[in-house]
Amino acid sequence: MQLQSESIVQESESKIEIGIFLFHDFESLDIFGPIEVFGHITEYHLNYCSLRGGLAASAQGASVLTQPIDEIPPPAIFVIPGGMGTRQLVNDAAALDAIRKRVEKSTYCLSICTGSAVLARCGVLNGRWATSNKHALEWVKSMGTKVAWLEKARWCVDGKFYTSSGVSAGIDMALGFVADRFGRERAEAVAHSMEYVWNSNPDDDPFAFPEVE
Amino acid sequence: MQLQSESIVQESESKIEIGIFLFHDFESLDIFGPIEVFGHITEYHLNYCSLRGGLAASAQGASVLTQPIDEIPPPAIFVIPGGMGTRQLVNDAAALDAIRKRVEKSTYCLSICTGSAVLARCGVLNGRWATSNKHALEWVKSMGTKVAWLEKARWCVDGKFYTSSGVSAGIDMALGFVADRFGRERAEAVAHSMEYVWNSNPDDDPFAFPEVE
Repeated sequence: MQLQSESIVQESESKIEIGIFLFHDFESLDIFGPIEVFGHITEYHLNYCSLRGGLAASAQGASVLTQPIDEIPPPAIFVIPGGMGTRQLVNDAAALDAIRKRVEKSTYCLSICTGSAVLARCGVLNGRWATSNKHALEWVKSMGTKVAWLEKARWCVDGKFYTSSGVSAGIDMALGFVADRFGRERAEAVAHSMEYVWNSNPDDDPFAFPEVE
Repeated sequence: MQLQSESIVQESESKIEIGIFLFHDFESLDIFGPIEVFGHITEYHLNYCSLRGGLAASAQGASVLTQPIDEIPPPAIFVIPGGMGTRQLVNDAAALDAIRKRVEKSTYCLSICTGSAVLARCGVLNGRWATSNKHALEWVKSMGTKVAWLEKARWCVDGKFYTSSGVSAGIDMALGFVADRFGRERAEAVAHSMEYVWNSNPDDDPFAFPEVE
């Protein structure tokens, strides 16, 4: 048993840890799209967490088991989805504080949809370009007045931060993130395995409002 | 309390019940894509089930809480994803029996990716057209020699059965299912809310092997 447990630890230690932060009323596809992409990257290990651990129920009623955010391995990559639950999360001081600490120590931080509103409330996007779901953009903007919000972008990269537009855009961004880390060919192979038609241009946003040029 | 509990029952009774069958090592996006689509349809109520209930862990390590399949409301729509776990599921007589019973009583039955291999093993696809993940098609075919397998299709409809190609194709099929029930305009509105570029032609399969015409 000693040997087996050592070998598990070694396997885990050789992986790049991804911390996925869930909360009540998160949007299912926001996070399960990127998770599908990252699941193809053998160098990555996925950790599902929430503020206190336990079950986190998505807006579509799927309850997912999570660990307390303080008990997962320090994530090199921190990922946060959006969803109606962000409306409560932006007022949860303990959650914002825990998220901020993890984000500050991460090498990369990714948000999908209104997840960027939570990052903005943590202050970590101040002075940076970021984007979000176009239908919620006015509310998202109000969560971070010092953020340079992009009104037209499938996803946006500024330093270590990747922020995507609404829901499905998270899949495109996750593939873009893989391309930036491991090359475009590998991202295309992942998209092919997923039988996914990748919208690979971050600036091509078919869902921006028509008045935005 | 009496009134409140009655009102909850009435609300539930007025919904169309969807039964989502999960199992160890199911593929995350296979099912969370269609769930995102169905979550936009207010007439639908989603139930997550497995053979005996409890947590079902996806291939990407997300553990989702399920009810025993015999304890959910009889589903008018039965949905089963694919994933590596189907390799065990096709040999689980108790699971196949439970699935067959639910499918026979359902109005519609949808599978994603190698979920159609499980349906084929239940015998419910005999004499019908169906499709699956192109990279697993030879194995899938061996699970149902009386099924007319389509080698090129984003998704396939035969009677009450909708079967999709690999992973992401499930999102396109779910939108097609919504279009067939509620009209194309509503399906397009759901796709727009999801900021999803819908591949709406079931015959257009960019991932079929080149030799298939």
